[in-house]
Amino acid sequence: MLSQAIKVSVVGASGYSGAELLKILLRHKKVQIQKLFANSSAGKRVAEVYPFFTQQVDAVYEQYSLEAACTSDVVFIALPSGEAMNVVPELLARGKRVVDFGGDFRLRDAAVYQKYYKRDHTAASLLSQAVYGLPEWNRAQVKPAKLVANPGCYPTGAALPLIPLLKEGLIEPKGIVINSLSGISGAGRSASTDMSFTEVNESVKAYKVGVHQHIPEILQTLRDTTQQSVAVTFVPHLLPVTRGIYTSIYATVTHAQTESEVLAAYEKYYAREPFVRFSATAIPEIKNVNYTNYIDIGFRLYPENHQIIVLSAIDNLVKGAAGQAVQNMNLMFGFDETEGLI
Amino acid sequence: MLSQAIKVSVVGASGYSGAELLKILLRHKKVQIQKLFANSSAGKRVAEVYPFFTQQVDAVYEQYSLEAACTSDVVFIALPSGEAMNVVPELLARGKRVVDFGGDFRLRDAAVYQKYYKRDHTAASLLSQAVYGLPEWNRAQVKPAKLVANPGCYPTGAALPLIPLLKEGLIEPKGIVINSLSGISGAGRSASTDMSFTEVNESVKAYKVGVHQHIPEILQTLRDTTQQSVAVTFVPHLLPVTRGIYTSIYATVTHAQTESEVLAAYEKYYAREPFVRFSATAIPEIKNVNYTNYIDIGFRLYPENHQIIVLSAIDNLVKGAAGQAVQNMNLMFGFDETEGLI
Amino acid sequence: MLSQAIKVSVVGASGYSGAELLKILLRHKKVQIQKLFANSSAGKRVAEVYPFFTQQVDAVYEQYSLEAACTSDVVFIALPSGEAMNVVPELLARGKRVVDFGGDFRLRDAAVYQKYYKRDHTAASLLSQAVYGLPEWNRAQVKPAKLVANPGCYPTGAALPLIPLLKEGLIEPKGIVINSLSGISGAGRSASTDMSFTEVNESVKAYKVGVHQHIPEILQTLRDTTQQSVAVTFVPHLLPVTRGIYTSIYATVTHAQTESEVLAAYEKYYAREPFVRFSATAIPEIKNVNYTNYIDIGFRLYPENHQIIVLSAIDNLVKGAAGQAVQNMNLMFGFDETEGLI
Amino acid sequence: MLSQAIKVSVVGASGYSGAELLKILLRHKKVQIQKLFANSSAGKRVAEVYPFFTQQVDAVYEQYSLEAACTSDVVFIALPSGEAMNVVPELLARGKRVVDFGGDFRLRDAAVYQKYYKRDHTAASLLSQAVYGLPEWNRAQVKPAKLVANPGCYPTGAALPLIPLLKEGLIEPKGIVINSLSGISGAGRSASTDMSFTEVNESVKAYKVGVHQHIPEILQTLRDTTQQSVAVTFVPHLLPVTRGIYTSIYATVTHAQTESEVLAAYEKYYAREPFVRFSATAIPEIKNVNYTNYIDIGFRLYPENHQIIVLSAIDNLVKGAAGQAVQNMNLMFGFDETEGLI
Repeated sequence: MLSQAIKVSVVGASGYSGAELLKILLRHKKVQIQKLFANSSAGKRVAEVYPFFTQQVDAVYEQYSLEAACTSDVVFIALPSGEAMNVVPELLARGKRVVDFGGDFRLRDAAVYQKYYKRDHTAASLLSQAVYGLPEWNRAQVKPAKLVANPGCYPTGAALPLIPLLKEGLIEPKGIVINSLSGISGAGRSASTDMSFTEVNESVKAYKVGVHQHIPEILQTLRDTTQQSVAVTFVPHLLPVTRGIYTSIYATVTHAQTESEVLAAYEKYYAREPFVRFSATAIPEIKNVNYTNYIDIGFRLYPENHQIIVLSAIDNLVKGAAGQAVQNMNLMFGFDETEGLI
Repeated sequence: MLSQAIKVSVVGASGYSGAELLKILLRHKKVQIQKLFANSSAGKRVAEVYPFFTQQVDAVYEQYSLEAACTSDVVFIALPSGEAMNVVPELLARGKRVVDFGGDFRLRDAAVYQKYYKRDHTAASLLSQAVYGLPEWNRAQVKPAKLVANPGCYPTGAALPLIPLLKEGLIEPKGIVINSLSGISGAGRSASTDMSFTEVNESVKAYKVGVHQHIPEILQTLRDTTQQSVAVTFVPHLLPVTRGIYTSIYATVTHAQTESEVLAAYEKYYAREPFVRFSATAIPEIKNVNYTNYIDIGFRLYPENHQIIVLSAIDNLVKGAAGQAVQNMNLMFGFDETEGLI
Repeated sequence: MLSQAIKVSVVGASGYSGAELLKILLRHKKVQIQKLFANSSAGKRVAEVYPFFTQQVDAVYEQYSLEAACTSDVVFIALPSGEAMNVVPELLARGKRVVDFGGDFRLRDAAVYQKYYKRDHTAASLLSQAVYGLPEWNRAQVKPAKLVANPGCYPTGAALPLIPLLKEGLIEPKGIVINSLSGISGAGRSASTDMSFTEVNESVKAYKVGVHQHIPEILQTLRDTTQQSVAVTFVPHLLPVTRGIYTSIYATVTHAQTESEVLAAYEKYYAREPFVRFSATAIPEIKNVNYTNYIDIGFRLYPENHQIIVLSAIDNLVKGAAGQAVQNMNLMFGFDETEGLI
Repeated sequence: MLSQAIKVSVVGASGYSGAELLKILLRHKKVQIQKLFANSSAGKRVAEVYPFFTQQVDAVYEQYSLEAACTSDVVFIALPSGEAMNVVPELLARGKRVVDFGGDFRLRDAAVYQKYYKRDHTAASLLSQAVYGLPEWNRAQVKPAKLVANPGCYPTGAALPLIPLLKEGLIEPKGIVINSLSGISGAGRSASTDMSFTEVNESVKAYKVGVHQHIPEILQTLRDTTQQSVAVTFVPHLLPVTRGIYTSIYATVTHAQTESEVLAAYEKYYAREPFVRFSATAIPEIKNVNYTNYIDIGFRLYPENHQIIVLSAIDNLVKGAAGQAVQNMNLMFGFDETEGLI
């Protein structure tokens, strides 16, 4: 461990994105893992809950305590939405920097949070200081941030392909359709008949049509980055794969376009982005991004309908969660943005 | 076998939809299976190629011959598109009735066929007499038909949910987005690296974006049934499941609607349809229709965007191929439409 | 419904094998479905719990009551092991005939039951009158039986291939290894992290090594049918497929044998069995038996090691549960043994 | 790239194990990738064949030539068995060190090779100098080796758990049963109906029973390492997962044993092995080793039958191929044995 290493802890470390985060932190040269907090698994060895880590991790999950957490420089919160707001205020009050994986600090408007998450926000005063951790668009704000709200998996897959097209005026901001497919690990690690193998295998279904909590997040992100009055229709579907988000976006082009105009928009904003790969020819596939922090973006023009179809693929646990969280941490602490991630 | 049984043969019987057809015909009380033709498998026992049929089918696949085929009352053509047009003319000339699974006789315009199927149509004079075998909409024409073009799997999944909404003027005919997911059996039974387990498992990808041969079929069907100038954007995706087509349709509603208006449209046209199930609450899932001839239709209104999302699920090998073919045969020969199918 | 139809009810109808049973009963020409009992789903429509049954089944799951059950001629018990013994005694006392899917009445020795099922047997006096419902071997006893204990899925897959070889003295009764693989539906329909898609997908594991409750059942069945002092080592594994049991059996041959000797043993006992398919050449595969009541048996001699490898495949929900139960019912009521099953 | 980096090339780089090797080499701090040879993909960019490598690998697959290969210090041969013997002799003649992934140089006896691989060995004179690259047992010989024959996936999964038990005399060397399950990537990257998704999904089957080419390799390895007259029965099965080998071994114990005796045997030989994890309690699962170079070993004693069941799991593409190859290279060039692998 190099002398300049920072100390990191994870709250909610025994879920799928917590475990993925641990894998990344083990490869990261600038961090020292301090505490792994987990409620139901407290007292168990990490390698008992996830035998994958046998011989790699000796740690034991511990019950969260503020004092123990405060031995760290940065705390990752990998709790389900609704639980982070119970611990983030006290951590910030103690001067700790926080990266939250859940939805509690992504939306600036507590009323919108209440509507989509079906609960009151108990730390609404912090919403204005939280930085939305989409590095490609908020890099400058992430660097000094005390509280980074790590983006949701669907919003990451949808916003990154859309923003350049909106900013360059290539597509209409209204009437955007976002059809997303998610692997089952996105549902988290828990006992549920609905997520049992027999129920989801060899099937697919849409869910939370029109009411998914990522809708306001997508809208807020597109509006913030483009200053346009965007409207989207978003439908998530459950896919019988473990990992991956596949997003198929349909938008109306503002005028007859060529592939090179579209490509130029992506080049303008993403040419030097370490984790964004785009192509005018290749069609994204989940398998090309799984276990990586990349987003793959492809597109096809459909001129007779004035439409463009934009396709993206990410790993929901990496670029859609733990990988992007580490990318944010790297920015916050001045590390190489790709450290631990390539 | 009852005395009034008809004699049926299958050309291209060793593919996946041919095998599914055989399963259905074995349960069908009014047919006598005459000949099973297959090229590469000719001479092999059916149960050798598909051990599933052991002790159920003693037949041997035979090389196609017109004479042998003409011992039947009806011939199912389960060949890849492009091959049916080589045998259908001679079968019709001999007075045989034909149900073709492929795309050769679905499109009325040979030029459109040439554009999307990338080959000349060599039996274009038959296109005008072929009946598009979507029983729910063309029942009257199917009954006396000599040549039935069995619909494609994607068009079946897309057209059945859309037609009632278009006919009742509930949605705009332009700007319809059709996002479809297909199981791998839709690619047929053949050796291909692209369809190997390792390539498609744990992944998903869009393909043939904007150029799929089912696009003109969807358009023709919607226009024929609704007399409207429909425009659709259709994107098929490959899904790592064996069977099933899942279709997510996005359309603009013509005015502020209620669930009951939409439901009324489906009730008006489908209330007595034996194979169409619709609901204002249930979301379709592939597992609910697999191994059946049903199409499940569900929907959600998204009023703030003036959008409706319509979802459908079918089994691509049954309602999307062999089941619908038998449904058509039942109509052609005056049998109960559900015979062999429930 | 024909006049001679019997009335059947199902207790525990909302589990996977209960649902599979319902599918079979719907195709069965000699039964009238009376009551479908389910605890947690009582009051719900069958088609709500299993949308697969929409338009096919109007029934509502009801809370079990003896009076309601007694309107039937035969009652299927598709409850988890340990629950059947609470209802079977009263049903028998009222003269009802019973087919029990679980393990409560399979073992003749209550002490063995206690050891493997980890609970006391509260209806041990009935054990002596229960008939083990393996039709191929106990057909005569099943016909008049009041209480049929339907065999377990693993024992069915293991015993059917082994019995002829043991009876003909072709293999040593000691040192038999049974390596079994089961689809996840075998674990039943319930909320469990262990059976969630993300946990079992793309993996495989052995479980309950040496302590599985099917061990004494396999031993009892082999001993009962062959009067030999059999010893087996049985290891079940969880396989990431929905359905199917694949059994690989390793045994020592008693003398240098030929394929035809082995084949002759199977022919002697199974030549006229409607649901047993065997071959000296074909290797069983799960996909060939899924959704059917067949067991496929194959084998290879390994002379240099004096070994025979016997392989079998069944659908755990059909031949391993609901299908075999209906086969037993057909015997009990004098119907064609294959009614509803082919 | 550090100054002491060695130059490596890969022949057959476009197959699955070649691609996995490339992933590992990209993480390896002591190698410089020189040439990636591939026949059918020659001229294509690596990232075109495997879009996974986009932005990570700029290289183009090239047609093999001896001169180009000889710019390297070590050449990995990831060709199908039967092709390596065409290039290895000339590489060795030019002083290059070679690690061969296939079966051409694993068996010392050319007649056995001929029997199981169904072809003559054209470089039999090299068999005596090839070192079998199972690092845990042949580390000393691997270090100076010119030609390392990388073990097969099944033999790795079977031999590592068995050797300590045989050496310590805990199990009988005769009558060992090895039941193995392999993910489909083990079949390589090629067009084949048998390996198409629809054929293998939701199924399982045994194959090459008693004739698999890994049988003599397992025997040779066990005999070489233990000097005992071992006999095994080995049956491989195809499993519908992409990666992983699961091995269930059944053996007779030589005397009544305790768990601690077995554990002691593993501790004696593997306590300091970086890639062998063993446990008296945990049951191996494929998911715990996938994408790693670990082998997980577990066991259960079955005293009443004098049996032990030993279970192991590896990733067939890593510890079963590319990972073990790099482990061997690390030994050959004096690098840390885990470099690039943890």
